[in-house]
Amino acid sequence: MINVLFAATEARWSEYEAPLTAAFADRDLAVDLRTDFAPDAFAPEEVDYIIYAPNSDVQDFTPYTRCKAVLNLWAGVEAIVGNQTLTQPLCRMVDHGLTRGMVEWVTGHALRHHLHIDHFLAHQDGDWEGAKLIPPLAEERPVTVLGLGELGTACAQSLAQMGFPVTGWSRTQKDIEGLTCLSGTDGLAKALSNAQILVLLLPLTEETTDLLDATRLGQLPEGAVILNPGRGPLIVDDALLAALDSGHLRHATLDVFREEPLPAAHPFWSHPKVTVCPHIASETRPLTASRIIADNVARGEAGQDFLFEVDRSQGY
Amino acid sequence: MINVLFAATEARWSEYEAPLTAAFADRDLAVDLRTDFAPDAFAPEEVDYIIYAPNSDVQDFTPYTRCKAVLNLWAGVEAIVGNQTLTQPLCRMVDHGLTRGMVEWVTGHALRHHLHIDHFLAHQDGDWEGAKLIPPLAEERPVTVLGLGELGTACAQSLAQMGFPVTGWSRTQKDIEGLTCLSGTDGLAKALSNAQILVLLLPLTEETTDLLDATRLGQLPEGAVILNPGRGPLIVDDALLAALDSGHLRHATLDVFREEPLPAAHPFWSHPKVTVCPHIASETRPLTASRIIADNVARGEAGQDFLFEVDRSQGY
Ligand SMILES: NC(=O)c1ccc[n+]([C@@H]2O[C@H](COP(=O)([O-])OP(=O)(O)OC[C@H]3O[C@@H](n4cnc5c(N)ncnc54)[C@H](OP(=O)(O)O)[C@@H]3O)[C@@H](O)[C@H]2O)c1
Ligand SMILES: NC(=O)c1ccc[n+]([C@@H]2O[C@H](COP(=O)([O-])OP(=O)(O)OC[C@H]3O[C@@H](n4cnc5c(N)ncnc54)[C@H](OP(=O)(O)O)[C@@H]3O)[C@@H](O)[C@H]2O)c1
Repeated sequence: MINVLFAATEARWSEYEAPLTAAFADRDLAVDLRTDFAPDAFAPEEVDYIIYAPNSDVQDFTPYTRCKAVLNLWAGVEAIVGNQTLTQPLCRMVDHGLTRGMVEWVTGHALRHHLHIDHFLAHQDGDWEGAKLIPPLAEERPVTVLGLGELGTACAQSLAQMGFPVTGWSRTQKDIEGLTCLSGTDGLAKALSNAQILVLLLPLTEETTDLLDATRLGQLPEGAVILNPGRGPLIVDDALLAALDSGHLRHATLDVFREEPLPAAHPFWSHPKVTVCPHIASETRPLTASRIIADNVARGEAGQDFLFEVDRSQGY
Repeated sequence: MINVLFAATEARWSEYEAPLTAAFADRDLAVDLRTDFAPDAFAPEEVDYIIYAPNSDVQDFTPYTRCKAVLNLWAGVEAIVGNQTLTQPLCRMVDHGLTRGMVEWVTGHALRHHLHIDHFLAHQDGDWEGAKLIPPLAEERPVTVLGLGELGTACAQSLAQMGFPVTGWSRTQKDIEGLTCLSGTDGLAKALSNAQILVLLLPLTEETTDLLDATRLGQLPEGAVILNPGRGPLIVDDALLAALDSGHLRHATLDVFREEPLPAAHPFWSHPKVTVCPHIASETRPLTASRIIADNVARGEAGQDFLFEVDRSQGY
C-alpha cells in the first residue's frame, strides 16, 4: 500500500478526493489516500508522498522520514522552496488546465487592451462619433513576455498566433519558433524598450523580486500596458502607481499582489488605470492535475525521475 | 493609359491616393487615377475601372459604358448588389487587414465574455472574495459562427485555436479542419442549440434578413452571448431586447445596426446587457487593400477572371 497524504484545505479536498482516487485507480496504484485533518490521519513516518498546498498545516517536513516526494498543487513554489526542513524532491504543478486557463486570460486581456475594449464600454452614451476608435492591427503592436517557462511560452505562442510580434525573455537563452528570444540584463532592456503590452510570467525568486522598478518601468514605451499574472512582488507598487499617474503607462491589469487578499484600502483597487483580479487568472483543474499527480507517484514507485521537479538552487 | 475612377469620399481619397498610386506602379500599370470630385474628373464613358464605396455620388452606372469592373472598397455589397444599372462585374473586398482586424475583434470579444471581464471591471470596490469568479476552460464553452466565408472561416479557426469547440454554419456544406460544419435549416437549429457564444458573419441578403428572430434566439441555450459584426438586420431588434430582458441571453455586443449611426435614443445604447460599437470591428486597410485593387486591375487588363467577384444571383 502506498500512503499518500493530502495536505491542503478541506475545500480543496472536496474537489480533489474523487478525481485523485480515480486517477490512482486508472494507473492500478494501490494507494491509501488520507488528509492531514482526518481522524485516522497517518503518522508522519508512514507517509510515502505528500500532495501539498502552501496554506496547509504541514510546515515542518522533518518527521516525514519515509516521504519520497512533495507534489505541489500549484505552479508557484516560492512559499515552500526555501523551507529548510524539506529535503525530499519537490515537484511543481504543470497541468493542461492551468496552462490553458493562463493562455486564455493573457490572450483575452491582451486583446482587451489592444482593441481598447474599456474605451467602448465607457462610450455607451449615444455619441456614435465620440465612441469611434480604430486600433492598429495586432501585427503593429509588439508584445513582450517575461518568463518563457510552461506558462510564458504557451502564452507567447498564443499571442504570436493572434498576430502580435512577440519577444520573450528568460534566464537561459531560448530558441522558440515564431518568437524573438532574449535573455540577460541587456536582453531585458531590449525586451522592454518596444513592449506595448508587457506580460509577467516569472516565478518569484530573490532575483526576480522588485524586477520591475522605476528604472525598468521607465524603459517601457509611452502608453504601454502591463499584465501581471505572475507574482505581486515582481513589480514595485509605488513605482507602478507613479508611472500610471505620470501618464507613462496606459494601464495595469494585475492578478497577483504582495499581500493577498489585496487590502481594501490599497490604492490599486480604486485607481482608474488599474484592474484588480483576485488571483483567478488560472486555476489548477482537479481532473487533469490529479492525473499528473498519479503519474508522478507511479514514476516514484518505478524508480524513475519525477516530472516537473524544482531546481532548489534556482528557486523554481 | 488605364483610367481608374475613385468614387468614394474625400476622406477616403486622402487615405488611398498614395498607396493606390504605389500599388499600380509596383505592377507597372500605366494608370490615370482620378476622383469623381476632381475638377478634371473623367467623362463617364472614359472610365475603365471604378473603385467604389456605397456612399459615393455615383449611383447610376449606365453612362460608364467602357467600365470593365466595379471594385468595392468594403466586404459587404448589399448597398450596390441590387443596383439595376450595374451590369459590369462587381468585386467585393477581401483584404489581409480586414480579415485580421475581424479575427482580433471577434476573438477579443469572445474571450471578454468567456472570461467575464466585464464582471471584474465592475468589481473594483475592494471586495476580494466578491470579485472571485473562475470561468470554465474555453474547451468547455461551445461557440458557433454563422457564415463561413472569408471572415467567418478565419474567425472560426482563430476561436478553435484558442480552444473553443467551434461549429460553423453556411449556405453550402463545408468541410474545414478543426470545425464542425453545418448547413441548411436543420443545421441552423443544431448550430444554435449549444452555442454559448454566437458570432454573426453572414452577408445581408433577402434570405439572411431577420434570420435571428424570437424563435431562433429561443433556440440558443440559456445565458448565451451574441456578437454581431455582420450586419444589423440579421437580428430582429425587439426580439433581441426581449431575450436579454427575460434573462435568456446574457449579453449582446453589436457593431452593426439597422440604422447607422445608431440613433442616440435607441434602447441598445443604454441597455446594461448590450455593448454598442460604432461599426469599427474591422476596417479595410489602405495599404493592403490597394494591392488587391491593383491585382484586380492587372487581371482585367490581362483578360483573366477577377478575384472575389460577387455572385449577383445570391446577392453576395
Ligand atoms: N496568477 C495565477 O493564477 C498563476 C497561476 C499559475 C502560475 N502563476 C505564476 O506563473 C509563474 C510561471 O509559471 P511557469 O509554470 O511558467 O514557471 P516555469 O516553467 O518554472 O518558468 C519560469 C520562467 O521564468 C524564467 N526565469 C526565472 N528566473 C529568471 C530570472 N532571474 N531572469 C529571467 N528569467 C527568469 C525561467 O527561465 P529559464 O527558462 O531560463 O529557466 C523560465 O523561463 C509561476 O512561478 C507562478 O508564480 C500564476
Ligand atoms: N463590422 C465590420 O466592420 C465588417 C467588416 C467587413 C465585413 N462585415 C460583414 O461581414 C460579412 C461577411 O463577410 P465575408 O467576407 O466573410 O463574406 P463571404 O466571404 O461572402 O461569406 C459569406 C458567408 O455567409 C454564408 N451565407 C450567405 N448566405 C447564407 C444563407 N442564406 N444561409 C447560410 N449561410 C449563408 C456564405 O455561405 P457559402 O459559403 O455557402 O456561400 C458564406 O459562408 C459581410 O457581408 C459584411 O456584412 C462587417
